[in-house]
Amino acid sequence: MASKPISRYPVPDLKDLPPDMRERILAVQEKSGFVPNVFLALAHRPAEWRAFFAYHDALLEKEGGLTKAEREMIVVATSGANQCQYCVVAHGAILRIRAKNPLVADQVAINYHEADLTPRQKAMLDFALKVARESERVDEVDFAALKGHGFTDDDIWDIAAITSLFALSNRMANFTAMRPNDEFYLMGRVPR
Amino acid sequence: MASKPISRYPVPDLKDLPPDMRERILAVQEKSGFVPNVFLALAHRPAEWRAFFAYHDALLEKEGGLTKAEREMIVVATSGANQCQYCVVAHGAILRIRAKNPLVADQVAINYHEADLTPRQKAMLDFALKVARESERVDEVDFAALKGHGFTDDDIWDIAAITSLFALSNRMANFTAMRPNDEFYLMGRVPR
Amino acid sequence: MASKPISRYPVPDLKDLPPDMRERILAVQEKSGFVPNVFLALAHRPAEWRAFFAYHDALLEKEGGLTKAEREMIVVATSGANQCQYCVVAHGAILRIRAKNPLVADQVAINYHEADLTPRQKAMLDFALKVARESERVDEVDFAALKGHGFTDDDIWDIAAITSLFALSNRMANFTAMRPNDEFYLMGRVPR
Amino acid sequence: MASKPISRYPVPDLKDLPPDMRERILAVQEKSGFVPNVFLALAHRPAEWRAFFAYHDALLEKEGGLTKAEREMIVVATSGANQCQYCVVAHGAILRIRAKNPLVADQVAINYHEADLTPRQKAMLDFALKVARESERVDEVDFAALKGHGFTDDDIWDIAAITSLFALSNRMANFTAMRPNDEFYLMGRVPR
Amino acid sequence: MASKPISRYPVPDLKDLPPDMRERILAVQEKSGFVPNVFLALAHRPAEWRAFFAYHDALLEKEGGLTKAEREMIVVATSGANQCQYCVVAHGAILRIRAKNPLVADQVAINYHEADLTPRQKAMLDFALKVARESERVDEVDFAALKGHGFTDDDIWDIAAITSLFALSNRMANFTAMRPNDEFYLMGRVPR
Amino acid sequence: MASKPISRYPVPDLKDLPPDMRERILAVQEKSGFVPNVFLALAHRPAEWRAFFAYHDALLEKEGGLTKAEREMIVVATSGANQCQYCVVAHGAILRIRAKNPLVADQVAINYHEADLTPRQKAMLDFALKVARESERVDEVDFAALKGHGFTDDDIWDIAAITSLFALSNRMANFTAMRPNDEFYLMGRVPR
Repeated sequence: MASKPISRYPVPDLKDLPPDMRERILAVQEKSGFVPNVFLALAHRPAEWRAFFAYHDALLEKEGGLTKAEREMIVVATSGANQCQYCVVAHGAILRIRAKNPLVADQVAINYHEADLTPRQKAMLDFALKVARESERVDEVDFAALKGHGFTDDDIWDIAAITSLFALSNRMANFTAMRPNDEFYLMGRVPR
Repeated sequence: MASKPISRYPVPDLKDLPPDMRERILAVQEKSGFVPNVFLALAHRPAEWRAFFAYHDALLEKEGGLTKAEREMIVVATSGANQCQYCVVAHGAILRIRAKNPLVADQVAINYHEADLTPRQKAMLDFALKVARESERVDEVDFAALKGHGFTDDDIWDIAAITSLFALSNRMANFTAMRPNDEFYLMGRVPR
Repeated sequence: MASKPISRYPVPDLKDLPPDMRERILAVQEKSGFVPNVFLALAHRPAEWRAFFAYHDALLEKEGGLTKAEREMIVVATSGANQCQYCVVAHGAILRIRAKNPLVADQVAINYHEADLTPRQKAMLDFALKVARESERVDEVDFAALKGHGFTDDDIWDIAAITSLFALSNRMANFTAMRPNDEFYLMGRVPR
Repeated sequence: MASKPISRYPVPDLKDLPPDMRERILAVQEKSGFVPNVFLALAHRPAEWRAFFAYHDALLEKEGGLTKAEREMIVVATSGANQCQYCVVAHGAILRIRAKNPLVADQVAINYHEADLTPRQKAMLDFALKVARESERVDEVDFAALKGHGFTDDDIWDIAAITSLFALSNRMANFTAMRPNDEFYLMGRVPR
Repeated sequence: MASKPISRYPVPDLKDLPPDMRERILAVQEKSGFVPNVFLALAHRPAEWRAFFAYHDALLEKEGGLTKAEREMIVVATSGANQCQYCVVAHGAILRIRAKNPLVADQVAINYHEADLTPRQKAMLDFALKVARESERVDEVDFAALKGHGFTDDDIWDIAAITSLFALSNRMANFTAMRPNDEFYLMGRVPR
Repeated sequence: MASKPISRYPVPDLKDLPPDMRERILAVQEKSGFVPNVFLALAHRPAEWRAFFAYHDALLEKEGGLTKAEREMIVVATSGANQCQYCVVAHGAILRIRAKNPLVADQVAINYHEADLTPRQKAMLDFALKVARESERVDEVDFAALKGHGFTDDDIWDIAAITSLFALSNRMANFTAMRPNDEFYLMGRVPR
């Protein structure tokens, strides 16, 4: 399966990339043991690549009120709704690892209402799905419901902003037919 | 109407922003005569602000196969589908100016099938709407149709990437209840 | 742009129309300064034309509990949902004039939830949209909600009947590819 | 069941109606043996009543390229899609009588694709349903398909206009909870 | 009309069927006066036929908290939503007979919200439609609502299971273009 | 996680079940190493249980033109569309094993258009999804497309019937909140 294309578009060689991009990619490879295909497929457009990962890091790597596992739940649930194969498989792996739970990613991808989540986490995903599918109807009632679960205004921004970033990401991955690395499918499913 | 809030979230004062952000905003103000509210509303989160405008410039300001008016058509048509008041009003104004056509923005926002566009432009918007609404179904038939209208692979990437960026932008604007500046409504409707 | 067809169907000359129709059209022209295309495009079928304008006048010209601006809000919001270019552009102009507000028509057409309206007006449009999209689900709860905002039974009939008439009108305009007059786009946007 | 209300709104007594309305209603009663409830329920608003029946007669009673049974097929198919109980039951009865076929109305109301119709009639209903549900997408391809089945431009107008009138009628009947007369359910099902 | 095919697939002769199937079919014919086409159309696959009717009898023929008329209401309402001609026509007939009501089947098929039902029966159909259309969202709130109307847990299972069986049945009937027997259309409409 | 309930309904003890059911369940346990929860959750209703598994075996265990892996693809793709957690997880495991492919189940569940399938298999799933979502529109064009890929009439019945059975099964699993066994998540992902 190694020979399957990872994008409809040409994928640059690591050696041909600008140094900042190559450096980041090598760091990821060092940490993960492989280069997630999103780093290569989007590298077809360096300026967009830099903006995308800057956005990604601003939301998923920073400190904040949502745990890193919760942020990945948002990614997996909304990417499932958008039928994005790359994002569900790749972020499903990250969710399993961050939540230290081998089951939760598949549950959230298929139907978060039946997943092993807290009521607070389900309320978080209710809101994420509303932003993903009918953001024009977000209103003060939604904010009140989330605050009733203890979310702050900044947590709510995080939920909406992560959902919005993956609204972009899901469409780019679907449009390019971005292929998840085989490695992701098993990550976090078996004790290390 | 001047006192209506422009976002559900606090909006920083220009003087409190980091210099790079303030500088960019002052340049826009210089050019446009006012500061579009998106620059202020998103400034609540500087790191995300920087990523957003880097992405925006990479797609909307660069040279490329699509005219600048065509790029705005993509923004207006998909933002209409997402019922994003800020993006339809603000980018509608920009479209009127870039297309030098006072009618086309309202037409595209309501129903691009009946707008004063070329068949090539309608094919471009057919694809943009597909990426906006059901990107999981994009396939080789779509690429062939676009190439039949003379679009290159890189033009097609531009159509999809602009659509994807505004999938993000529409959701952020809707979620924050971002208010379009009053100035946009009339821009490009009367000869200067 | 003057030469663009205003309908897929033949449009009769004013001089060939029956006297009652010609008289009405000349009166409109006298008042507005131009003949709105709906008067000409529908004149292809005189009997239907007479019934349509009789219905129109019975709902939009009479006295009643809804202001004339509110009635136009109903037209613009439901015509936006039905993506009717003629009705959004033409009645958007009338709404701007009747509400003496240059912004409200675009706001209502794109997303009335974020428009500069009163809660009572938003409740009116919630109901109009329900009649437009899923009238089979209208029930006593809807009536109670409207009465809580001070609407009478006859006001509620007006909301539903205006919505219903434009369910007809939007489909006729879309089917005939009825073109809005250029004049409408700017009406009510600049102080006279 | 005689005591069930036929509308959410007050229904005027025949004797209190203006002479022209009373005369028409008595004529219908004479011909049908009963007064269809739509004549009474809509009489709450005389001016709208007159416009409605003028529109109705202009489309359903005139001579034309579509048979009267075909016009009723359009009413029944689109009213089924709009879940309008009054229109499906009442016009289903008329369709059975005009088509001299006791089965076709139920078939068309549930799923016209499987009804005992000609390919030409199914094409007619394909177009009617498109006008009912997504009129903003009607285009030249639709016209060409209908002409391939022998429909003229004026036949096509009739299909669209009947669909549009019942877009109005279905919403009014649903909104007022208009009750079909018991007599309709059995009409045309048994040989006279 | 007798010669219209009752299925896209070959229909076995009664004499060629295994004895258990033939016996059941003859018993139905004895009782009803004709053989409902579902018994013949599904007989193309004997093992599936046996499972289908075993399932059917387990839900529709047993004793239980729902009346037999109520079970048929579930069938008719959900089959209407799935546009299944065979099931609406055939079970509409059975509903008329079991409810001893010549009107209720057409009402339920078109729009149960406006049918002559009790609030308890409407709550039952609200739940059935939710299971038919978005079963992934069934939750404890639904159970509480039904219990508020006096339904037991086992009644609720019956509602969901009948809905589920006809989710299967509607798809099989639609896929095979199964034709309702002419006899069904009139059954239960006239006093015997 | 062992203590999570596997159904909203009481689950019978194996020892309390009728002998035929217990025997079947023990045989499955013997073969799989555990008892899939569907056998226990549905045992709340023995008569329905027997009908369900008879139907299941008639379609999934028999010989036929579709491979056993292909039948599981149908189950996984349609269960994904219906957001059925039990069926996607359990049949995803079976698909991985039958296809000897650790990746294909997740791909098919999320978006079969981008899965590692043959064009013939994608045509099979196009049809299955049409039966799952809009069976009322199945027509001769669908049959012709499938035959162009070499499917026989009996293969097509199999595709539709498996889809229909899981239309039932998905709704029962969703309604009962049926929980997939933890064992399924990892099955078929690692070489034995």
